[in-house]
Amino acid sequence: MEVKKENIILGIDPGTKVLGYGLITIQKPKIIPLQYGILNLSNLDNQALKLKRIFEQISELVEEYNPDEMALESPFYGQNIQVALKLGRAQGVAMLAGLIREIPISEYAPRKIKQVVTGNGNASKEQVAKMLDTLLDFSTSTDIPLDATDALAVAVCHHYQGNLPQNQSKSWEAFLKENPDRVK
Amino acid sequence: MEVKKENIILGIDPGTKVLGYGLITIQKPKIIPLQYGILNLSNLDNQALKLKRIFEQISELVEEYNPDEMALESPFYGQNIQVALKLGRAQGVAMLAGLIREIPISEYAPRKIKQVVTGNGNASKEQVAKMLDTLLDFSTSTDIPLDATDALAVAVCHHYQGNLPQNQSKSWEAFLKENPDRVK
Repeated sequence: MEVKKENIILGIDPGTKVLGYGLITIQKPKIIPLQYGILNLSNLDNQALKLKRIFEQISELVEEYNPDEMALESPFYGQNIQVALKLGRAQGVAMLAGLIREIPISEYAPRKIKQVVTGNGNASKEQVAKMLDTLLDFSTSTDIPLDATDALAVAVCHHYQGNLPQNQSKSWEAFLKENPDRVK
Repeated sequence: MEVKKENIILGIDPGTKVLGYGLITIQKPKIIPLQYGILNLSNLDNQALKLKRIFEQISELVEEYNPDEMALESPFYGQNIQVALKLGRAQGVAMLAGLIREIPISEYAPRKIKQVVTGNGNASKEQVAKMLDTLLDFSTSTDIPLDATDALAVAVCHHYQGNLPQNQSKSWEAFLKENPDRVK
């Protein structure tokens, strides 16, 4: 089935142990999941290999699906500087896979994502999964793997936020210029 | 002058405002600086551009000089999680430029670098620069730009530490296998 894809969004939840990813395409009024899954990093025994693997995985998804935008869950909790530094490295290489291909990246805090997707900033992972099952147009009845929900949720959150790059200094004019197909 | 290069080390001091880099080559007993400088990131108005620029700069150096190893100054201070996350992203993309070309990366804390290079873990930037001026074989009398000293210092530190990958889970056997030219 060949359908015009209005917009493809790659959602990423980058962690140092597990990275979740989820691709959706918007075919109004449907939100269709294209692919989602997790990359298990815990079996890689050093950080160098993990960073390389994250970059490779996201690069493969970007090359295969050519997303228009990326959305990142950017957790920001805890008091441990060492953990934040490691998480930053994982985020950095995941972002780079899109940046070198000029894909705009937006970031959302976990609470914001839950708020936008379920209406409740304190929703559980199960509640988010249940809502995604309702919002997304799965071709067959399916349970979304819980570890992939965060990634799909950030992509859906980004869609509902109007698909405008957040946390970037781009002007609306620049955004339109780079995304002429957005204006019908 | 074509001389056999025993070993080329790329030292990096990645920051979110300024990135310092320094390449040295070891031609025993000399340590010869090949190139050093800084990349000013403060004029780039968003983090996406900074991360991309860091990756491009390090990739260019790696392609031009084909270093055998990379050494990273990995600062670890402060209580600000937000800063640590940003610094981690900058470190991650700098590391990736080497990682995707299979270059081993070692990390050193600032205090360790000062200790190894000057004998004093609390040495000032000026003291480090003065010692580098003595240790390195500059072809002409020169003042090292202070912002580049940290990068040259981490490369020199790595050389004195025996050029073995630190903070990695590689076995000695694996290291020898990947670096057969190290065994004469």
